[in-house]
Amino acid sequence: MRYQLYYWSGIQGRGEFIRLALEDAAASYDDVARDQGDDAIVPFLDGVHHGDLPFAPPFLKVGRMVIAQVANILQYLGPPLGLVPASEGRRLYAHQLQLTISDLVTEVHDSHHPIASGLYYREQRKEAARRAADLREARLPKFLDYFEQVLKRGGGQHALRQHSYVDLSLYQLMAGLDFAFPRAMQRLGRDYPLLRALGTRVARRPRIAAYLDSPRRLAFNQDGIFRHYPELDDPA
Amino acid sequence: MRYQLYYWSGIQGRGEFIRLALEDAAASYDDVARDQGDDAIVPFLDGVHHGDLPFAPPFLKVGRMVIAQVANILQYLGPPLGLVPASEGRRLYAHQLQLTISDLVTEVHDSHHPIASGLYYREQRKEAARRAADLREARLPKFLDYFEQVLKRGGGQHALRQHSYVDLSLYQLMAGLDFAFPRAMQRLGRDYPLLRALGTRVARRPRIAAYLDSPRRLAFNQDGIFRHYPELDDPA
Repeated sequence: MRYQLYYWSGIQGRGEFIRLALEDAAASYDDVARDQGDDAIVPFLDGVHHGDLPFAPPFLKVGRMVIAQVANILQYLGPPLGLVPASEGRRLYAHQLQLTISDLVTEVHDSHHPIASGLYYREQRKEAARRAADLREARLPKFLDYFEQVLKRGGGQHALRQHSYVDLSLYQLMAGLDFAFPRAMQRLGRDYPLLRALGTRVARRPRIAAYLDSPRRLAFNQDGIFRHYPELDDPA
Repeated sequence: MRYQLYYWSGIQGRGEFIRLALEDAAASYDDVARDQGDDAIVPFLDGVHHGDLPFAPPFLKVGRMVIAQVANILQYLGPPLGLVPASEGRRLYAHQLQLTISDLVTEVHDSHHPIASGLYYREQRKEAARRAADLREARLPKFLDYFEQVLKRGGGQHALRQHSYVDLSLYQLMAGLDFAFPRAMQRLGRDYPLLRALGTRVARRPRIAAYLDSPRRLAFNQDGIFRHYPELDDPA
């Protein structure tokens, strides 16, 4: 099975959670907009295509199926890619964890866009300063405490007692947070030894290491979800 | 099978999407915090329980399983309650639509809490006015256009060509929006005849009508996700 991933070509963004799963499993896939340009996405959003209607990228085309929403794509890919345990209970839990990661990703996005995703950051800087402070002081510790406890309950090494797409996404989450909020993450980092160790282990997985070293891995940048605005981080 | 639903007792909130599915299917369930008080939720959030760790309510206890995240609970309940088509492709699409509804629900919440969920509305009124204006002018039309097109592609009557939990959630979404933004929804409503007709049909389903008439259905209020602050609605 060859997969077609559709996501904006200039950013890691939400598409990166899918890319990491495909790369880790050595799956055969096309990163369509990277190959053909972002215009390849538009007909799907306009509904000028066969199959189901996505609200937004990323979406995955598998034969005639069009599957949207990051967590939904990952729960679909989990079994064929060997990235989720087989039992229904474990798959539901993996998906719950992925949805909670998605919730935090949305909160990170809103820390630089608290008013409107259609406006520039510079048009909502004042509000962003307030929201980012709350993210650093209240929300990040709440989410990271939760994920640290999830790892602890799972035996320390994995979210689910075995490697899964959730571990890959937790790696990406921590990498993004380190890029966006280096000072806050240095302050908070000591409290999350299991998350830190997981991130290191994932980055060393041979296919992930090769991917991170390749031109396929875009750098974090100021158009993505994880952005580094020093004024939104802890004071120096 | 008897289900235990855990959700804050004083609001419809996110729990209501689960309640509507359970009620429509005449499922046997306990609304635990309504019976025992909100304290019954706390041990689960503190991790002092068997089973998986939820990040936040609502969660559903089924035997020893603990399932969290609204859309995840609904995808679990769909098959046994007869509220989703059988094929994998249809279940993935139903779930994608539910996740998109969840995304809009989060945006509605953030329209009155754009800075911090831990602060009162009165502490973020100015920011809320800006964010709510964007919701009314840009985001609501974008999401409602999408769902209207989904209904159209599904034959006009249902999101999925047959009754499903997605229809129930679209009803709840429109009811909540009508409560929160009556003037904006009157302005926008004419553009969404299929969503409007769906809402009317769902409210007339015998078990849903009985539920809405019962004391089990809480009224919308100013502690929930859908709140009516006239200053956040279209100008009079």
